[in-house]
Amino acid sequence: MNPIRPTIALDAPGKTHGFLRLPHSRNDSAWGSVMIPLTVIAHGDGPTALLTGGNHGDEYEGPIALQQLAWEIAPEQVSGRVIIVPYMNFPAFRAGTRVSPVDQVNLNRCFPGRADGTVTQKIAHYFNDTLVPLADIVLDFHSGGKTLDFLPYAAAHYLEDKEQQARCSAAMRAFGAPYSMMMREIDAVGMFDTAVEAQGKTFVTTELGGGGTATARTAAIAIRGARNLLRHAGILAGSAEPGDSVMLDMPGDDCFHFAQCDGLLQPLADLGDPVRAGQPLARIWPPDRTGAAPVEMRANRDGILVARHFPGLVQSGDCLAVIAIG
Amino acid sequence: MNPIRPTIALDAPGKTHGFLRLPHSRNDSAWGSVMIPLTVIAHGDGPTALLTGGNHGDEYEGPIALQQLAWEIAPEQVSGRVIIVPYMNFPAFRAGTRVSPVDQVNLNRCFPGRADGTVTQKIAHYFNDTLVPLADIVLDFHSGGKTLDFLPYAAAHYLEDKEQQARCSAAMRAFGAPYSMMMREIDAVGMFDTAVEAQGKTFVTTELGGGGTATARTAAIAIRGARNLLRHAGILAGSAEPGDSVMLDMPGDDCFHFAQCDGLLQPLADLGDPVRAGQPLARIWPPDRTGAAPVEMRANRDGILVARHFPGLVQSGDCLAVIAIG
Amino acid sequence: MNPIRPTIALDAPGKTHGFLRLPHSRNDSAWGSVMIPLTVIAHGDGPTALLTGGNHGDEYEGPIALQQLAWEIAPEQVSGRVIIVPYMNFPAFRAGTRVSPVDQVNLNRCFPGRADGTVTQKIAHYFNDTLVPLADIVLDFHSGGKTLDFLPYAAAHYLEDKEQQARCSAAMRAFGAPYSMMMREIDAVGMFDTAVEAQGKTFVTTELGGGGTATARTAAIAIRGARNLLRHAGILAGSAEPGDSVMLDMPGDDCFHFAQCDGLLQPLADLGDPVRAGQPLARIWPPDRTGAAPVEMRANRDGILVARHFPGLVQSGDCLAVIAIG
Amino acid sequence: MNPIRPTIALDAPGKTHGFLRLPHSRNDSAWGSVMIPLTVIAHGDGPTALLTGGNHGDEYEGPIALQQLAWEIAPEQVSGRVIIVPYMNFPAFRAGTRVSPVDQVNLNRCFPGRADGTVTQKIAHYFNDTLVPLADIVLDFHSGGKTLDFLPYAAAHYLEDKEQQARCSAAMRAFGAPYSMMMREIDAVGMFDTAVEAQGKTFVTTELGGGGTATARTAAIAIRGARNLLRHAGILAGSAEPGDSVMLDMPGDDCFHFAQCDGLLQPLADLGDPVRAGQPLARIWPPDRTGAAPVEMRANRDGILVARHFPGLVQSGDCLAVIAIG
Amino acid sequence: MNPIRPTIALDAPGKTHGFLRLPHSRNDSAWGSVMIPLTVIAHGDGPTALLTGGNHGDEYEGPIALQQLAWEIAPEQVSGRVIIVPYMNFPAFRAGTRVSPVDQVNLNRCFPGRADGTVTQKIAHYFNDTLVPLADIVLDFHSGGKTLDFLPYAAAHYLEDKEQQARCSAAMRAFGAPYSMMMREIDAVGMFDTAVEAQGKTFVTTELGGGGTATARTAAIAIRGARNLLRHAGILAGSAEPGDSVMLDMPGDDCFHFAQCDGLLQPLADLGDPVRAGQPLARIWPPDRTGAAPVEMRANRDGILVARHFPGLVQSGDCLAVIAIG
Amino acid sequence: MNPIRPTIALDAPGKTHGFLRLPHSRNDSAWGSVMIPLTVIAHGDGPTALLTGGNHGDEYEGPIALQQLAWEIAPEQVSGRVIIVPYMNFPAFRAGTRVSPVDQVNLNRCFPGRADGTVTQKIAHYFNDTLVPLADIVLDFHSGGKTLDFLPYAAAHYLEDKEQQARCSAAMRAFGAPYSMMMREIDAVGMFDTAVEAQGKTFVTTELGGGGTATARTAAIAIRGARNLLRHAGILAGSAEPGDSVMLDMPGDDCFHFAQCDGLLQPLADLGDPVRAGQPLARIWPPDRTGAAPVEMRANRDGILVARHFPGLVQSGDCLAVIAIG
Repeated sequence: MNPIRPTIALDAPGKTHGFLRLPHSRNDSAWGSVMIPLTVIAHGDGPTALLTGGNHGDEYEGPIALQQLAWEIAPEQVSGRVIIVPYMNFPAFRAGTRVSPVDQVNLNRCFPGRADGTVTQKIAHYFNDTLVPLADIVLDFHSGGKTLDFLPYAAAHYLEDKEQQARCSAAMRAFGAPYSMMMREIDAVGMFDTAVEAQGKTFVTTELGGGGTATARTAAIAIRGARNLLRHAGILAGSAEPGDSVMLDMPGDDCFHFAQCDGLLQPLADLGDPVRAGQPLARIWPPDRTGAAPVEMRANRDGILVARHFPGLVQSGDCLAVIAIG
Repeated sequence: MNPIRPTIALDAPGKTHGFLRLPHSRNDSAWGSVMIPLTVIAHGDGPTALLTGGNHGDEYEGPIALQQLAWEIAPEQVSGRVIIVPYMNFPAFRAGTRVSPVDQVNLNRCFPGRADGTVTQKIAHYFNDTLVPLADIVLDFHSGGKTLDFLPYAAAHYLEDKEQQARCSAAMRAFGAPYSMMMREIDAVGMFDTAVEAQGKTFVTTELGGGGTATARTAAIAIRGARNLLRHAGILAGSAEPGDSVMLDMPGDDCFHFAQCDGLLQPLADLGDPVRAGQPLARIWPPDRTGAAPVEMRANRDGILVARHFPGLVQSGDCLAVIAIG
Repeated sequence: MNPIRPTIALDAPGKTHGFLRLPHSRNDSAWGSVMIPLTVIAHGDGPTALLTGGNHGDEYEGPIALQQLAWEIAPEQVSGRVIIVPYMNFPAFRAGTRVSPVDQVNLNRCFPGRADGTVTQKIAHYFNDTLVPLADIVLDFHSGGKTLDFLPYAAAHYLEDKEQQARCSAAMRAFGAPYSMMMREIDAVGMFDTAVEAQGKTFVTTELGGGGTATARTAAIAIRGARNLLRHAGILAGSAEPGDSVMLDMPGDDCFHFAQCDGLLQPLADLGDPVRAGQPLARIWPPDRTGAAPVEMRANRDGILVARHFPGLVQSGDCLAVIAIG
Repeated sequence: MNPIRPTIALDAPGKTHGFLRLPHSRNDSAWGSVMIPLTVIAHGDGPTALLTGGNHGDEYEGPIALQQLAWEIAPEQVSGRVIIVPYMNFPAFRAGTRVSPVDQVNLNRCFPGRADGTVTQKIAHYFNDTLVPLADIVLDFHSGGKTLDFLPYAAAHYLEDKEQQARCSAAMRAFGAPYSMMMREIDAVGMFDTAVEAQGKTFVTTELGGGGTATARTAAIAIRGARNLLRHAGILAGSAEPGDSVMLDMPGDDCFHFAQCDGLLQPLADLGDPVRAGQPLARIWPPDRTGAAPVEMRANRDGILVARHFPGLVQSGDCLAVIAIG
Repeated sequence: MNPIRPTIALDAPGKTHGFLRLPHSRNDSAWGSVMIPLTVIAHGDGPTALLTGGNHGDEYEGPIALQQLAWEIAPEQVSGRVIIVPYMNFPAFRAGTRVSPVDQVNLNRCFPGRADGTVTQKIAHYFNDTLVPLADIVLDFHSGGKTLDFLPYAAAHYLEDKEQQARCSAAMRAFGAPYSMMMREIDAVGMFDTAVEAQGKTFVTTELGGGGTATARTAAIAIRGARNLLRHAGILAGSAEPGDSVMLDMPGDDCFHFAQCDGLLQPLADLGDPVRAGQPLARIWPPDRTGAAPVEMRANRDGILVARHFPGLVQSGDCLAVIAIG
Repeated sequence: MNPIRPTIALDAPGKTHGFLRLPHSRNDSAWGSVMIPLTVIAHGDGPTALLTGGNHGDEYEGPIALQQLAWEIAPEQVSGRVIIVPYMNFPAFRAGTRVSPVDQVNLNRCFPGRADGTVTQKIAHYFNDTLVPLADIVLDFHSGGKTLDFLPYAAAHYLEDKEQQARCSAAMRAFGAPYSMMMREIDAVGMFDTAVEAQGKTFVTTELGGGGTATARTAAIAIRGARNLLRHAGILAGSAEPGDSVMLDMPGDDCFHFAQCDGLLQPLADLGDPVRAGQPLARIWPPDRTGAAPVEMRANRDGILVARHFPGLVQSGDCLAVIAIG
């Protein structure tokens, strides 16, 4: 049985703030716990939305938007229920790292989790078995984290169930990010996305920037998108006002460009730039000498640059660039 | 006597690539050395320029521009000499950190260095006593590193010697960054800038972005600026073509805004935005709970936002924002 | 097959000292081993007692008492056999940590263990499959470790088999600690206690202090208690002389009090103090500022304080206090 | 010039809370600061008391008492000024360590500090040059920290200036701890005590427990003692009510008992116990085997046990016990 | 499905160099990969040989020999195919450690691996399921690594299938190391050897020195041995020229000698020395004092010393010496 | 004043074993000490020899030889005094590292030390100011440590005082290592050698192997050499029996060969091999790919190989080889 217990009732009317308490015995606290912050806003009849951030601990637009919503939304504005978890992988969020410092597990690769597993596996299991079943619509915020940078987009997946895909796609468009991406995941094993979709829920995810920071602009996209989604779901009053969004697609493996050496990265194109197949995208200079030729990386295909390696140094095997098509 | 020895002659005609070799006995190499890459391009008569990057190890526009220049400039294009050190604090550059992992020393706070000091102090001493005296003009590249982000600017200091200040200011304008900043350092003790200026040299520094990354745009500013500067100095042929640059000034301590608590940072203004005194610049949300009010930070003065804290999490005492005036 | 091998025979008459040798290939010893010290004292006919300490590596009354007994008990004083393992989780004991530094596993949460698992899982498996089956009575010493502090008590569990419970309870009373606790574990999964009891053995455990220290007083309780237990089992001659003991019970989840913020802990009641429901037990002061109100924690119920958080700093989720009833 | 700046005026009337801000450039914050919390309570005419805790970061009675006093004392209760710094070595306090995690420096061994030194040396220098000169009386709280445990005492030093010694001794007695110790430091170089006394101030220090914890009892001694001292100084109204206190003295080097091997420590006497020369105080058992004789440590002299090694494991060279005389 | 993908075709004619790319999401590269270098040389008809080094990351004769072969062998010299992986556990090789720094797993104890396991388990699975099935003969290089030192030998195992054993033994003799060892593994669970042999392949392994170094002599043995093996398999032209080799056997558990205490190791016999049962092989001196008797370790049996503990310090449980018979 | 105190008298007749106790306050022991083992053997009239090992903590021939001598030499065999310190930099010796884990200081580069410095500086100061002045002759054992390997030699320095040089050279020859080296140190600043020679003492040092191990052969050289030296000094009876020794010289900076890239080291010559100028000594293969040419390092001069880089991986700047002349 999953040992996580909420310190507040998940169905209490009004707005309540509390924690998901997960017992965690360790050297620095024999009877300690992981305390994942949680807000529930419930009022009247209507659907339930589960809004999550901090699935990876170094992505900040989601946590910012969800703190603001948990603070601003009054119960009487709601028809139904909003469950908000801004810092889903709380130990990773506190450490500012992608994966958990407790067990080195990537929360978004360990669904459906295990009730008797490591700390991160227990968190996955609790979301999968307890919170997701309560929800009609789920929004999980992502950005590039400390090592990737993205054009800001909301995303939905190509699904076998076309009715579900249509629901997800409509929700993605309602979110109203500057870009909208239809994705066919090559390897969706272990993702929260897959676990939620497998329960038939309407699911939207995002990539809203990266580098382990957030800007006023990207935070505003996240806040506005979440409000739009709640309106789209009928939980907040009014209609979503998504505005224009550029539709994108990642058609295949050749979208991804990987480094084959270590070094100093010189980008030759920036996010949003249109690129042509064969065009140089970046150079890698030797990190230990001058006077040696750089290694050049060229575009595999035409398109626009939607993601890039963020740190100034690159390691062999890193994804340097992703090209999508409009 | 400083133990650093160059593996190439500093006055050899033509273009030579080598290392500054600094013996460094340590657990993983009893008779090891730090090898700082170095290029010297010498041809004909003319002044000597010393171009440095990697003074802080997590700032990348300088290293990129200097690798490209060391690769591209042919000796016959030069009248005089260019000494290029793209990775000045080499151990920090390899580690991707601001300060050296060897001794935890900030190179840019330990000038004039010590010949019998720690590794970083020896590097400072060698630049101060050997390389800077060879130079007529010195360009030291900086950016914000992993924890700050800047509008791209070149900078010169207010100096007691007004003739020297005029030389530096002219060189700054020749660099041609989008912004140009006249700075009056509050605490210049230990800086490379101060050490170079104390020797009467023409000195330009920069802040060209930050976050521990570089973009195609900021790298291009660095490359173009360095070429402009070498033209301005008469080392490369032709005139500098700086284009337009916004002139800026940091008039006092109230430009700087410091956090007084830890938390999740929500920026409310972005780099380059004009701001008014009293306007909210950012909120800090609690990192451990929902439902608590954020701490708001307001602008001390009118101006434009020229620097900001980069990471999504903030610690008490961090500089969150810098406002300059036009 | 479990790779642990004892270096001495487990059934040799007389007193022999040796090791449980567990092969452990690792970076600093390709063909290394974990060597868990072990004493066997066997003489004449009678039952077998298994005495263990160091299940958690930062609890010291058990190791002290068992070293002294292994040193002092002469074979001719024994009718039957005493198997003594003072440092059960030996790598944790050497490191002075609750869980093993080798695999970060809590030995007392991984029973019945795995023969092909990590180092700690192999230790659990060897006790479960080899040593416990040899024993009629098992005494496992615990204290609070570095992060908890307890009133000194021996304990037995409420069990489904009431005859077994009566045996355990009688042994607990024979131990003769100042306090005696009947426990109904909420979550006994993976505990050594549960594994031993599942084999029908008579089992006693203790909590004899804490903080990662031992005092002359608590060490004496441990030594006297172990001797009493061996007399009670008929292995040492004479009768147990338990003296007075206060009987205690932990009736439910509201015995436990958890922190919901980080900070500096100011205790307002000490171990053994009688408390009333609603009475302030502790304050938590902010760790980063003065002038802010402390968070106060009040007692959930009447009773006496039997356990407390030990370190001066507290983390959100830590158990601050446990109240038992007489 | 010392770079520390208070964020509040040190002479503002009323009660103000703020920080000593010390700029600290580092990998995780290029323009970061150490923020040492500070409270100033000033009202009417009278002397200035400087009250400090957290000189060592793992000693908690002082921080607790000073947080409570900063919270409770109203300006109108004061005649003169109280400057309260509960977490003097703030980085060490946050880390829960004796010495600073920033530079590994023991604050209490680096006085008078250096304005251009490491973080801890700058803190020492600021206290020495700025805060202590403002004070008439200084109280610096200590306890044993994570590795020692003490009988609770206030202390004064034998000084060359007998008038100053009489002032200090009177203040110590006014504090009213259960024990009072006159100390002749063998090696007082670098201590805050010495730096304060060298400025002719009235100085009291304490040892109020240890082990890295505080109890309700020891925290109460600290709070009551600090109030007594402020009354004694005439800053708070009323007279000190010290109650009974046992007077103690540490007459020489033979008070201290050091281990000459590593192992598991079995104490044979507890704090406050009277001991006789030659009496066994502790045994050290081998940490890696059973069946080997323990090493026994005997008392060098008659007296009472006033301090002891706290952790259950001991390292060669550790101080195991201190005996004082009444 | 195993996520590893080769960047080159495994059956392309000619000589191609590339990588086995294993996606590895982690804090310092969200979309990073492990890049294991690989060379395939294919030409004409003939068997396939798989040559591997770096199974343990601190053993160097294999990597050196395989780099040289990948560099020197021309496609036209080959009849069949040679697949060369010099750095099998690439993360361990880069770190210079026996086990992987990524997951602390010993590659040679985790076969047949798991497609959905940790990084090292995925590598094992890819070799087991993809590369070994392609091979007729497999040569896996080992040496003693940083903590053991061996006489240089090639080895084959006693197998149930005597025809396969004869093939392996013939290949071992063709290798032509100075010594040749027939081994009966006590515990072969999880070894690459076992996994290869279970697929009916001809398999040879080696121990060619140790200490985390290689010499000109041991590297030459490795290079010559690998060429001999390829000739023996008919992949390179000509016959193997093994020269003389001393045949050895490890007949039982008493070949191994384990330390029972920590200390400073004084060897009394060197590799290759003949020894007699009862002869002192080494002394262990206390690491913390002088004037105490050393512990002496004596030979369990007659034979010659074929392996020894390498570091100057020894830990209890380390294997100090292995004696084989001629 | 240096805080180190011996626990035994340095002039007591007979043989006494004890410690140099150096108080060292730290997080894990507030009143802890470093305990450096020490043996004094004094009897009759005669000179004083100071014998030291463990100056670097990963060199083992010296510690082994000195433990054996401290154990074996009986007082009545001595005319004069022998002071033996086998583990001079005790914290480094326990950690198995070249430099101290306490302060990262290389003991052999910090003489004459500081009484108020770091732990290692205090040790240097105590030897310089207290122990060396007591001695007539000093023998300091070295080997290559974990990262270098040497032909076994004793060494003396070219000194300005030719009489002293003759004394040292005679003592070196009396030691009787297989090789004897006359050295002219390029940079002798901070070495124990220099400090001892500056006091006019007869001084011998050694390099007896390396790699962080010792063999039966190299340990025997050390033991025999130390006994020879004591006989040569007239402290032990009889004459030194040095046997044959090859005389060597390192004539200049071109003896040393440094790497200019990272990689996998393939040695092409072994210790003791005669080499010719221009002959390849080693290759460095890329650590991250196959199919790229190795970097070759050639001999600067004729001679024999007397030292080499030990680990299988090499870093840019490491000393790969040293060639001496006969």
